[in-house]
Amino acid sequence: MEEPTRLVEEATINNMDGQQNEEERDPESNSLHQPLLKRNRTLSSSPFALVGAKVSHIESLDYEINENDLFKHDWRRRSRVQVLQYVFLKWTLAFLVGLLTGVTATLINLAIENMAGYKLRAVVNYIEDRRYLMGFAYFAGANFVLTLIAALLCVCFAPTAAGPGIPEIKAYLNGVDTPNMYGATTLFVKIIGSIAAVSASLDLGKEGPLVHIGACFASLLGQGGPDNYRLRWRWLRYFNNDRDRRDLITCGSSSGVCAAFRSPVGGVLFALEEVATWWRSALLWRTFFSTAVVVVILRAFIEYCKSGNCGLFGRGGLIMFDVSGVSVSYHVVDIIPVVVIGIIGGLLGSLYNHVLHKILRLYNLINEKGKLHKVLLALSVSLFTSICMYGLPFLAKCKPCDPSLPGSCPGTGGTGNFKQFNCPDGYYNDLATLLLTTNDDAVRNIFSINTPGEFQVMSLIIYFVLYCILGLITFGIAVPSGLFLPIILMGSAYGRLLAIAMGSYTKIDPGLYAVLGAASLMAGSMRMTVSLCVIFLELTNNLLLLPITMLVLLIAKSVGDCFNLSIYEIILELKGLPFLDANPEPWMRNITAGELADVKPPVVTLCGVEKVGRIVEALKNTTYNGFPVVDEGVVPPVGLPVGATELHGLVLRTHLLLVLKKKWFLHERRRTEEWEVREKFTWIDLAERGGKIEDVLVTKDEMEMYVDLHPLTNTTPYTVVESLSVAKAMVLFRQVGLRHMLIVPKYQAAGVSPVVGILTRQDLRAHNILSVFPHLEKSKSGKKGN
Amino acid sequence: MEEPTRLVEEATINNMDGQQNEEERDPESNSLHQPLLKRNRTLSSSPFALVGAKVSHIESLDYEINENDLFKHDWRRRSRVQVLQYVFLKWTLAFLVGLLTGVTATLINLAIENMAGYKLRAVVNYIEDRRYLMGFAYFAGANFVLTLIAALLCVCFAPTAAGPGIPEIKAYLNGVDTPNMYGATTLFVKIIGSIAAVSASLDLGKEGPLVHIGACFASLLGQGGPDNYRLRWRWLRYFNNDRDRRDLITCGSSSGVCAAFRSPVGGVLFALEEVATWWRSALLWRTFFSTAVVVVILRAFIEYCKSGNCGLFGRGGLIMFDVSGVSVSYHVVDIIPVVVIGIIGGLLGSLYNHVLHKILRLYNLINEKGKLHKVLLALSVSLFTSICMYGLPFLAKCKPCDPSLPGSCPGTGGTGNFKQFNCPDGYYNDLATLLLTTNDDAVRNIFSINTPGEFQVMSLIIYFVLYCILGLITFGIAVPSGLFLPIILMGSAYGRLLAIAMGSYTKIDPGLYAVLGAASLMAGSMRMTVSLCVIFLELTNNLLLLPITMLVLLIAKSVGDCFNLSIYEIILELKGLPFLDANPEPWMRNITAGELADVKPPVVTLCGVEKVGRIVEALKNTTYNGFPVVDEGVVPPVGLPVGATELHGLVLRTHLLLVLKKKWFLHERRRTEEWEVREKFTWIDLAERGGKIEDVLVTKDEMEMYVDLHPLTNTTPYTVVESLSVAKAMVLFRQVGLRHMLIVPKYQAAGVSPVVGILTRQDLRAHNILSVFPHLEKSKSGKKGN
Repeated sequence: MEEPTRLVEEATINNMDGQQNEEERDPESNSLHQPLLKRNRTLSSSPFALVGAKVSHIESLDYEINENDLFKHDWRRRSRVQVLQYVFLKWTLAFLVGLLTGVTATLINLAIENMAGYKLRAVVNYIEDRRYLMGFAYFAGANFVLTLIAALLCVCFAPTAAGPGIPEIKAYLNGVDTPNMYGATTLFVKIIGSIAAVSASLDLGKEGPLVHIGACFASLLGQGGPDNYRLRWRWLRYFNNDRDRRDLITCGSSSGVCAAFRSPVGGVLFALEEVATWWRSALLWRTFFSTAVVVVILRAFIEYCKSGNCGLFGRGGLIMFDVSGVSVSYHVVDIIPVVVIGIIGGLLGSLYNHVLHKILRLYNLINEKGKLHKVLLALSVSLFTSICMYGLPFLAKCKPCDPSLPGSCPGTGGTGNFKQFNCPDGYYNDLATLLLTTNDDAVRNIFSINTPGEFQVMSLIIYFVLYCILGLITFGIAVPSGLFLPIILMGSAYGRLLAIAMGSYTKIDPGLYAVLGAASLMAGSMRMTVSLCVIFLELTNNLLLLPITMLVLLIAKSVGDCFNLSIYEIILELKGLPFLDANPEPWMRNITAGELADVKPPVVTLCGVEKVGRIVEALKNTTYNGFPVVDEGVVPPVGLPVGATELHGLVLRTHLLLVLKKKWFLHERRRTEEWEVREKFTWIDLAERGGKIEDVLVTKDEMEMYVDLHPLTNTTPYTVVESLSVAKAMVLFRQVGLRHMLIVPKYQAAGVSPVVGILTRQDLRAHNILSVFPHLEKSKSGKKGN
Repeated sequence: MEEPTRLVEEATINNMDGQQNEEERDPESNSLHQPLLKRNRTLSSSPFALVGAKVSHIESLDYEINENDLFKHDWRRRSRVQVLQYVFLKWTLAFLVGLLTGVTATLINLAIENMAGYKLRAVVNYIEDRRYLMGFAYFAGANFVLTLIAALLCVCFAPTAAGPGIPEIKAYLNGVDTPNMYGATTLFVKIIGSIAAVSASLDLGKEGPLVHIGACFASLLGQGGPDNYRLRWRWLRYFNNDRDRRDLITCGSSSGVCAAFRSPVGGVLFALEEVATWWRSALLWRTFFSTAVVVVILRAFIEYCKSGNCGLFGRGGLIMFDVSGVSVSYHVVDIIPVVVIGIIGGLLGSLYNHVLHKILRLYNLINEKGKLHKVLLALSVSLFTSICMYGLPFLAKCKPCDPSLPGSCPGTGGTGNFKQFNCPDGYYNDLATLLLTTNDDAVRNIFSINTPGEFQVMSLIIYFVLYCILGLITFGIAVPSGLFLPIILMGSAYGRLLAIAMGSYTKIDPGLYAVLGAASLMAGSMRMTVSLCVIFLELTNNLLLLPITMLVLLIAKSVGDCFNLSIYEIILELKGLPFLDANPEPWMRNITAGELADVKPPVVTLCGVEKVGRIVEALKNTTYNGFPVVDEGVVPPVGLPVGATELHGLVLRTHLLLVLKKKWFLHERRRTEEWEVREKFTWIDLAERGGKIEDVLVTKDEMEMYVDLHPLTNTTPYTVVESLSVAKAMVLFRQVGLRHMLIVPKYQAAGVSPVVGILTRQDLRAHNILSVFPHLEKSKSGKKGN
C-alpha cells in the first residue's frame, strides 16, 4: 500500500480560522487550470488591496438554506411530528434562555450587593473610628484584589470576555462570527469577572455583560452544551445551523437587557433597534416570551429577598429610579430646559464617543504588548479609582442634615442617602454619599426626588469630572465592563448640575433633571431612541414622563448624529469586524458587480463530476469557502444547442472536505444515484462545520478518482447579473443574509462561462471597494439619508 | 398629413386599472414576433389558471430603484443641498403627519363626546320624566339619522372608507396599492362617517378609522395634496416614489394608533408588528417622532379642555383604564386565573374570527346587490342596536346604591358610574350604566376598580351576549368602523364574568379581570403581542401589570393560532388582496422559478433599439407592465464570441407610454447620446404614473420609426437563475420589495435567450401556484414554523 501524501506542504495557506478572505493569494501563483472565460483584469496585480487594512479573518455565517439533494430529501421526509418537535424545542429553548439569564442576573446582583456592601460597610466602620489610612488600605486593597481576579480571568482564560460584548453580538447577528465569543469559558469568566469588577468599585456596569451572558446561554443551549461536552440529541440537531442560532442569540440578548434593567419591552426593543440586523414578527414574539420569563424570575427573587434572606440584597441590585411621584406640568416654559438638556446631552455624548475612541486606540497599543501589560493597566485604573473615590470626599464640606427630609440623617452603616463619613453627628458628606457606595446606589441617590438642596454644586462638579475621567479610562481595560452605567452616572451628574444652573426657571425636580440628563447622554452616545425611551419608562415607572423623555432622546440623538457614529459602531470599526451597514453608500450605484469581480482573482469553478486531484488542489491552493459547480457539454433540453454549459450551483469547502474525509470516490466519471449518497452522508454530517485540508489524507491513486459533486451542491444559490450595481447587490446580500453571491454574465453566447465571479461580505464593504476604486469616493454626494 | 390611427380597436384589453396580471391573454393569440427561445410549455393552454379565482387587479408598488440612465444622471448631480432638502422635508412631513393626525383625533373625540353626550342626556331626561316611548323614539331616531349620514357618505362618495382600513394599509405596506384608498374624499368621509357612526351608539370604535386617517394624511402630504389640486413643488417631487410614500404611510398609521390609544410606543410597535412588511431602524425613529408629536398635541388639548371649554369633552374621549391603583401580588395561585383568562380568551377570539368570517361573506352577498342594500343593511343594524340598548336595561333589577363607594349614586345627567334609569332614587340600573352611554364610558365603567359588586351576573351576561351579537353584525356594514372597541367591550364583559366565576379564589380585582379579559380577546382575535402589551401598559399606566399582561397575551395568541388566522389576515383574504406572506410555504422548495415561468405565456422582450410599431403592438396586445430589453448581436468585449445577446435590463410600460406620448422617435436604428434623452425627459417625468395606450396617437409613418430604449431602461433589475426554488425566489422578492423579477437561464450557449421569464407578485402567491401545480400541496408537510 502506498504512503499517503500529507497535504501540508504550504504553511502559508490556511493560516487563518476563517476562510472568508478569498483574495489572500496572488492569482498569478494560482496553478489551477482556468478553463473558463478570461476577462481583462485591470487590478489583478494587487488583490490584497480589496482586503484593505482592516482585515478581519472572521468567518461569515451561513444563513442561506443549502438546498442540495440531501437537504431536499431529508426535508421532504420530515414528518409533522418532527416539525412539532422543532417548534416545541424552539420555545423550550427560548424559555430556558430566559430562565438561565434571569437566575444568573439575580445571582450576580446578589453577589455584587453583598461583596460591595460588606466591603463598604467595613470601610465606613474604619472611618467612624477615624482610622482613615486603614480604611483606605482596606478599600484600595479589596478593589485591587477584585480587579486582579477579574483581569487575570479575562487575560488568561477568555480575552473575549473583556468589554461589554454588545458590539460582537451585533456583528454576530449581522453575520460575522467572532471566534470564541459564546463558549462556556467565556460565559464563566464573564459572570465571575463581572461580579469582581463591579464589586471593585470600578466605573463600569453589569448591564453590558448581562447581554453577553444571555447570548452565551442562548448559544450554548442551542448547540447542546460546551464545545467538548455537547449533548448530541437528535432534537438539538435541528438547531445546528446559523439561522436558528441567530434567533436564539437574539432572544438571549433581549433577555440580558431585560435582566439588566428589569425592562421586558425595553429588552425586546433594544434587540430590535440596536442589535439585530434581520427581524421578523415571529421573532418579536419569541424574544418577548424570553423577556417575560426573565422578569417573572427577577420579581420572584425580589419578593423572596424582601424577607431578608439575601444579606444586603435589599433592592434587588437593580437601578430603580424613584421618580414615580414626580408630576410634570406641560407648559411652554418647561420645553426649553428639556430642549437644552437634549442638545447638551447630544454634544457631550458625541464628545464622549470621540475621546473614548482615542483612548481605546491608545489602550490597544498597550494591550498588544502582552498579558502583563493588560493586567497592569487594569490594576492602575483600579488604584486610581480607589484613590479618587476615597480621597475626594474629604474635599467636600460637611452639610447639616435637613430634619424635614425623610430618612435617617446621617445614615447608618453603608446605606442610605446621607453618609456621615468624616463629618460630625448631625452633618453628612454629600460627596461620600455619591462616591463611597455601589454604582447602583449612587444612581439611586442622585436620581432621588424632592432633594433639591441635598448636593452642593462643588460636590456635583467633582463628581461629574471624576466620572467623566473614570468613564473614559475604565472602559478599555481587560475586565467585563458595560457602558450603560458609566454613561448614566455621568449623565445624572450633568443633569443635576444643569438643574442648578437653570435655577428657579422651571419647577422640574432636580431628580428628574438627573434622569433626563442620563437619558440624553445615553442617546447622545449610543444613539438609540425607542428602546432607551421604553427602558427609562420601565425604570422610572412614570408614564407622564414619556413625552419629555422622547423629546430629549430625539434631540440628543439628532445632535449626536451630526458629529460621529454611535459608540457601538465605533467599537465595531475599531475591532475591524466586517459589519454590513443597512444602507449602501451612494457611490455604490456607480460601480457594478461585474467591475468588482474583474478586480478579484478569477473564481475557481469545479465540474459536476470532478477529479479528486483537482478538488484537493483547489482546496489547497485557495482559501475560498465556496466553489461554483459548472457542467460542461451537457445533454441539453429540447431546443437548446449541444455543448451548452450549465450552472449547477455552489459547493461549500466543508462539504468537499467531508467528501475527501469519507473517501466517497468513484472510479469512473459518472453521476451517482440518490441512494449512493444517502448511504454515505446524512444531513447531520453536512451541518457540521470545520475541518482542514491538512488533516485529510489522500493517496496518489485516489487523486486520479472522481467525485460526483451534484448531490452535495447547493443548486439554488442566489445570483446577480454582472450589470447589477453594487448598491443593489449589497441590499440583496444583506436582506437575504448571504455568504456567497454568484455573479452570472449578462451576455449569452457559446463559450461564455455561466459564472463570472463570486461576491462575499468583504467585497461589499465600502472600505475595501474604495481601496481599489478610490475615484468612487469623489463622486460621493453625501449619504442619501433614509 | 395622415390621419392618426387611434389604437383602441380591442376593447378587451386594458380593461383593468392595474396591469399586474400578465397572464390574462391567451399566448396563442399573441401575434407578437417571438424570436427567442421556445420552450416546451405544459400548461400554456390554461394561462388563466395561474391567476386563480381570487384575482385582484390591483397594481403592485415599485419599491425597486429604477436605475436607468436618467436616474443615474440626476442622481449624480444631486447636490448636498438637495440631499439636505430631502432630509429636512422628510422630517417635516413626519411632523405634519403627527400634527394633523393628533388634531383630527382630538376634533373627532370632541365631536363624538358632545354629540353622543347631548343625545344621551336628552334620552335620560325623557326617562326621568317616565316618557319611555318618547325616549326610545328620540334615541332610535337620532341613531338612525346618524347611521344614515355615515352610510350614505360611505356608499355614495367613498366606498373604501367603510371598515377599519387597517388590512388595506397592511397590504399597501406589503406592496399592494388598493385604488382610491388614500384620497381626500376618503379622508373626509372617514372623519365625518366615523363621528356619525360612533355617535350613533353603534358597536364600533374610532380606533381603526383613526389609523386609516393617519395614513390618508401621510399619503396626501407626500403627494402634495388631493389628486386634482396637487402642489407641484420641486421639493415634494422627491417624494413622488413608492418607497418614500411607504415610509410616510407607516408614520401615519403609527400616529393613528397613538392618537386612538394615547400610546406613542404602542403606536410604533403596532406599525412594526402588525402593519409593516419592511422595517428599518431609521423608520423606527421617524415613526417615534410622529407619535411623540401626536401625544403632545393630545395632552395639550386635554389640558385645555379641563377648564371646561369643550362641552362634554371631559376625559378627552380616550379610553383610559383606571387600574393604576391596583396592586398585584405574585403568588402561584394568581397564575392560574391568568392562564385561564388567556386560554378562554384565545378560544373566544378565534371563534369570533371564525363567525365573523362567515358573516362577512354573507354581508358581501348583500352589499353586492347595490347601494340601497348597503344602506338598508346599515340602518337595520342601527335599529336593532337601538332597540337592544334601550330595551334591555328594563330587564335588569334595580340595585341599591352602596354608600361606601365614592361618586354620586345614582349619577346625574348622562355621566357617571351609576345610572338611575327607571329605578327609584337611591337605586341604580347597572345594565343602563353599561348600555346607555358612549362605548368609551362603558369601557371605563366596566374597567373601574374596587367595584366588585357593582354589576349583577345577569346584567353582565346580557351585556356580554349583546355585544357578541353586535360585534359580529356591526363590523361589515358600510360605515367606518374599528375592531378594537367591540373586542374590548366583549372582552371586558367576559373578564368580569370570569371574575365572578372565579369567586374568592384570588384577590385579583374584577376591574383587572376585565382589563385582562379584553387583552386576551384582542390577542386571540388580532394575534398581536408586544404592541398590544405596550398599548395596555400605556392605557393602564401600571407597570406592575406587565408580566401578567404578557402572559395572558402570549397564551391567548398561541391558543388562537392553533385554530385560524388573525382577523386582519382573514379580511385580507376575503378582499382578495395579493398579500405576500413572510415565510414561503414549505412545498415551494419543490418547484423552481423556471418551472413557474414555463407555464406562463412567453415573456415579450424588446430590442435595445426597437421599432415604434413593435412597441405599440406589445403595449396593445399585452397587459404586461415591464418588458425585458435584450440587445442581439452586440459588439462584444474582448474575449467574447461575436453574436452574443446581452440582457440590458427592464423597461416599464409607463416609460414606453411616455416615449410614445412625447414622440421621441428616431429615423434610423441607432443609439442616442445622453444629451438627446435629457433634452426630452426629466426624472420627474419618469416618476409620473399612469397613462393608457388607447390615449396615444401614432401615425403610420411613425410606426416605422425607432426608439432607443437604452437610456430609459432600468439596467439593474434583480434576477434569479431558473433553477432557483420558488421559496428562495419569494424570499428575495419580498425582502427586497420587487415588482418584477427577471429569470435568467442556467444554460450558457449560443441562441439561448438571456431572459427566460418574469415573475411578479401574482406568480409567487401560493394559491395561484397550487391551482396550476395541485400535486405540490400533497407534498406539504406542515408549515415549518419560524
